[in-house]
Amino acid sequence: MNRKIVFYTTGKIFKALAALLLLPALVALWYHERTLVHILVSAGIAYLSGMLLTHRKPQDTAIYAKEGFAIVALAWLGLSSIGALPLWLSGAIPSYIDALFETVSGFTTTGASIMPGVEHVSRALLFWRSFTHWVGGMGVLVFVMAIIPLSERRSMHIMRAEVPGPTSGKLLPRMRDTAKVLYTLYLGLSLLMFTLLVIAGMPAFDSAIHTFGTAGTGGFSSKNSSIAFYDSATIDWITTIFMTLFGVNFNLYYYLMIRNYKAVYKNEELRWYLGIMVFLSVVIAINIIPLKGSFLNALRYSAFQVSSLMTTTGYATANFDLWPSFSKTLLVLAMFIGASAGSTGGGLKVSRLMILGKAAKAEIKRMLHPRMVTSVTMDDKPVAESTITGAYVYIVVYFAIAAVSVVLLSLDGFDFETNFTAMAACFNNIGPGLSKVGPICNYSEYSDFSKIVLILDMLLGRLEIFPMLFGLAFPFWKGHRKVSAKNVRTDNTIVGSKSSDKTRS
Amino acid sequence: MNRKIVFYTTGKIFKALAALLLLPALVALWYHERTLVHILVSAGIAYLSGMLLTHRKPQDTAIYAKEGFAIVALAWLGLSSIGALPLWLSGAIPSYIDALFETVSGFTTTGASIMPGVEHVSRALLFWRSFTHWVGGMGVLVFVMAIIPLSERRSMHIMRAEVPGPTSGKLLPRMRDTAKVLYTLYLGLSLLMFTLLVIAGMPAFDSAIHTFGTAGTGGFSSKNSSIAFYDSATIDWITTIFMTLFGVNFNLYYYLMIRNYKAVYKNEELRWYLGIMVFLSVVIAINIIPLKGSFLNALRYSAFQVSSLMTTTGYATANFDLWPSFSKTLLVLAMFIGASAGSTGGGLKVSRLMILGKAAKAEIKRMLHPRMVTSVTMDDKPVAESTITGAYVYIVVYFAIAAVSVVLLSLDGFDFETNFTAMAACFNNIGPGLSKVGPICNYSEYSDFSKIVLILDMLLGRLEIFPMLFGLAFPFWKGHRKVSAKNVRTDNTIVGSKSSDKTRS
Repeated sequence: MNRKIVFYTTGKIFKALAALLLLPALVALWYHERTLVHILVSAGIAYLSGMLLTHRKPQDTAIYAKEGFAIVALAWLGLSSIGALPLWLSGAIPSYIDALFETVSGFTTTGASIMPGVEHVSRALLFWRSFTHWVGGMGVLVFVMAIIPLSERRSMHIMRAEVPGPTSGKLLPRMRDTAKVLYTLYLGLSLLMFTLLVIAGMPAFDSAIHTFGTAGTGGFSSKNSSIAFYDSATIDWITTIFMTLFGVNFNLYYYLMIRNYKAVYKNEELRWYLGIMVFLSVVIAINIIPLKGSFLNALRYSAFQVSSLMTTTGYATANFDLWPSFSKTLLVLAMFIGASAGSTGGGLKVSRLMILGKAAKAEIKRMLHPRMVTSVTMDDKPVAESTITGAYVYIVVYFAIAAVSVVLLSLDGFDFETNFTAMAACFNNIGPGLSKVGPICNYSEYSDFSKIVLILDMLLGRLEIFPMLFGLAFPFWKGHRKVSAKNVRTDNTIVGSKSSDKTRS
Repeated sequence: MNRKIVFYTTGKIFKALAALLLLPALVALWYHERTLVHILVSAGIAYLSGMLLTHRKPQDTAIYAKEGFAIVALAWLGLSSIGALPLWLSGAIPSYIDALFETVSGFTTTGASIMPGVEHVSRALLFWRSFTHWVGGMGVLVFVMAIIPLSERRSMHIMRAEVPGPTSGKLLPRMRDTAKVLYTLYLGLSLLMFTLLVIAGMPAFDSAIHTFGTAGTGGFSSKNSSIAFYDSATIDWITTIFMTLFGVNFNLYYYLMIRNYKAVYKNEELRWYLGIMVFLSVVIAINIIPLKGSFLNALRYSAFQVSSLMTTTGYATANFDLWPSFSKTLLVLAMFIGASAGSTGGGLKVSRLMILGKAAKAEIKRMLHPRMVTSVTMDDKPVAESTITGAYVYIVVYFAIAAVSVVLLSLDGFDFETNFTAMAACFNNIGPGLSKVGPICNYSEYSDFSKIVLILDMLLGRLEIFPMLFGLAFPFWKGHRKVSAKNVRTDNTIVGSKSSDKTRS
C-alpha cells in the first residue's frame, strides 16, 4: 500500500474542490448574498487541506487496485466533509451531521434531503447543493482526471473504481481522453436540457438547478414541491425524457457521435432499460387512471415517476405514496432495478441484472442437461466467468448490507415500510421512499445514528460497494505491501468483473 | 423424459396417501365424529387415483434428474389436491381454494392459515391438518421410500429433489436405509416431545397436534391463540427447545447415535445456527424488557419467537406485531435465514448463507490480491465450485420469485408490510407474517388469485424452487429425451450443487 500517493492524489482533489466552490461564490456575488463569506472560507479550507497533502510529491507514483480504492473512498469522504461546510457555516443547516447528510446526498446524486423546506435558502447555497449532483454524477475523480494530467496507469485504476456498472469500457486508448469525451457529452446534453427548460418557461436559475439534478440523476430541487411546482406538462415531459437519457450508458452517445449506429442498435441493455421503463409506465398509468382522469394524463405522471425512480433521480410530480399498492410496489421494484451501467444513475443496474438472469438461466439448463455446454452472452459477445462471479458477489454483499441497514434503522422505531424504503432510496441513490420518507416528506426525523447509516449507504451505493468498503478499511491496511511495478501485470484486475474488458470492449 | 414411470410412481404415492388418511379416520371413529365419511371418501378417491396410475407397470423404470423433479412436483401437487378434500367435503372450509391453501400450508410445513378459528373444527380434521405437517416435514417421498421398495438409483434422484439444503448427503450406502434411519430418528424425537408435553400438563390430543406442528416445523395449532393458550413457561420452553432441535440437520443425530461426536462438534452450520439463535434471542429480550418485566421473562418470549420463526415453525406465544420496530425487523431477518440444511425447517438455510458469505469473502480477497489462491471450506473440507454456483443461482432465482410474488400480491391493495411479510412467511414456509397477516390474524382476506400465488410460493419454498419449477413445466416437456442408462453417469448431477456430495460426504 502506497499511502503517500493516496494522500497526494486526495490533496489534488481537495484543490479541485476549492476551485469548484468558486462557482457558488460567483452566484453569491451576483445575487449579493452574505453567504459569500461562508463559501470562501470553505474554499480556503479545501485549498489549505489540499496544500498540506500535496506538500511533498512522492517519488513512487504507482497506483494499483488498492490505492485506487483508497483514493476514491478518501476523496469522496473528504469532498463531502468539506463540501458540507458552506451549508453548516451559513446556518442554513444548523447540525453538521445534517449538513453532511445533505452533501453526501448531493455528491452521491441521491437527492435525499433533511431540509423541511428550501425556498428560504440562499441561491448560492441552493446552487452549490445542486451543483454537487452534477459533479458527482459523472464522477468527481473522472472530472479531476479530465482536467489534471495523471499517468495512464494511475487514471485507469481510479476510473474503474468510480464508474458504475459490472464492466467498464475504455472508449479511447487513453483514459484521460475517455474522461474528456464523457464530460463533453455530459456537458452537451446538460446545456441542451437547460435551453429546453428555459424555452418551456422555467426561470434560468431554476433551469440550472433542475438540469444539475437531472443530469446527475440526483433530484435536489429549488422548490419544496419539486418539479410539481411548475405544473406544466411540457416541463414534465422534458424532464422525463432527459432523466431517461441520463440513465443511458454514455458510451452509446459516443458511438452515436462517431456514427457507430450498429453498436447502439445491438445494445441489449439499452433495449431492456427502455423496455422495462415503458412497460412499468404503461402498467402504472392504467392502474392510476381513476386518480388522473385520462390515460394520457395518467401516463404523464406514471412515466415521470418511473423514469425518476428507475434512473434514481428522485424528482416527483405526484405524491405516489397515495397511489394504489400495486403501483407503489412496482415503483419500489424500479428503485432496485436502477439505470444502465456507465450512466450517472444508481441502483443494481439493468446490465448487472441481465447478467445474473442469463447466468441463472444457463445454470438451470445445465441442471437439466448436465453435459450441455452453455455460455452467457451479452451483445453477442461472451461474458467472462469473472464478470458473472463479480455480479454474484455484488448481489450477495448488496443484500447483506441492505439487511444490516434496515435492522440498524429500525432502532429509531419507525415502521417497516419507512425503514425499508429509506434504505432502498439511499442505497440505490434515489432520494424519496415511501411512508415517512415519501416524496412530500424528508429524512429529518431520523436520529443522527440512522443518518450516519444512511450516509454510508449512499456512499456504498454510489461507489458500488467495494471501493468504499476497502477504502473504509484503509487505516487498518498494512503498509508493507508496496509491490514493485515489475511484479504486477499492467492490466491488474481490481474487481472480479473488471478483467472482462478484454471480452467486452 | 420417461413419463410412464413418473405417473406410475405418483400413483404409488397416491396409494400411500390413502393409507395415511386412515389415521384421521381412526381419530374420527374414536371421537364418534360424522366427518368420518368425508375422510373415507377422500381416502377412496386417493386409492382409486393411485390404482388408475399404477394400472400398468412400465417396462423402463429408469429415473433420472428430470423424472425425479417431475415425480416430486406432481406428487406434492397431487397430495395437496386430494388431501384438501376432507376439509372441503366436510364443510369445515367452504371454498376449495381455501382448503387447498390450508393443505399445501400443511404439507409444506408453512402453517399459514385461512381459518379465522379452529376450536370449533372436528378433532379428526384438526388431526389430519396437523398430521400433514409431520408427513411433509421429513418429506412425503422420503417417507414413501422408507416403506415401499424402490431401486437404488430411483430413490436417489427423488430424495435429492426433496431433501432441502445446498448439499445432500447419504448417511448409509443405500438410500432406502438412509430414509429409514432419518424417519426412525424423526419418530423418536417426536415421541420424546409428545411425552414431555403430556407430563407438562397438555392434554394428549393437543400434545399430538403440537408435536406434529413442531416436528415438521409447521405451526398449525388446535387452539386459536396457538401455544399462548396454555400460558405455561414449561410448555413454552419445551416447545422452544424442540423447535430448535428439529431445525438441526438430522444427519447430526445419526452421528450422535453412532458416537461420532467429532463430526457434530466440528459442524460449522450447527455452531452458526445456534449462535444466531442465541444472539437474536438475547438482543430481542433486552429490547422487550419494558413489555415483559424481567430479562428472564422477556427471554422466554423472545427465544420462543426467534426459534419459531428461524426454524420456520410459526407458533406464537406473543403478538410480536406489537413489539418494537427493532425486534420486528430482527424477526423478519430470522425468517429469511431459516433453519439448517437436512432439517425439517425452511428458509434460505444457514449453510447456504454460510457458503455465500464465504464465497463472497474469498472473491473479495481475490480482488485485492489477484494472484492469491483462495478456496472456500466448510467443516474443514473444500466446497465444490458447483455447490457455490448452485447457491448463487438459488439466491438470484429466490429474490426474483420473491419480487414477482410481492408485485402480484399488491394487486389486492394491502400495505407493503403485509404483502412483503406474507410472501416471506409463505415462501420461507413459516406461517405468520406482520400487519394483516400477523400472528393473531390469518390469510383469509386475500383474494383467490393471491392465495394461488401464495400456494405456489409455499411449494417453491418447501421444494427449494428447482424441482417445483421444472415440475410445473412438466406438461410442456418433450418426450424424446429417453436417455439410455449407458450414456449417463450413475452419479448424474441434478442440481449444480449436488455433485458436491463427493467433497462433502
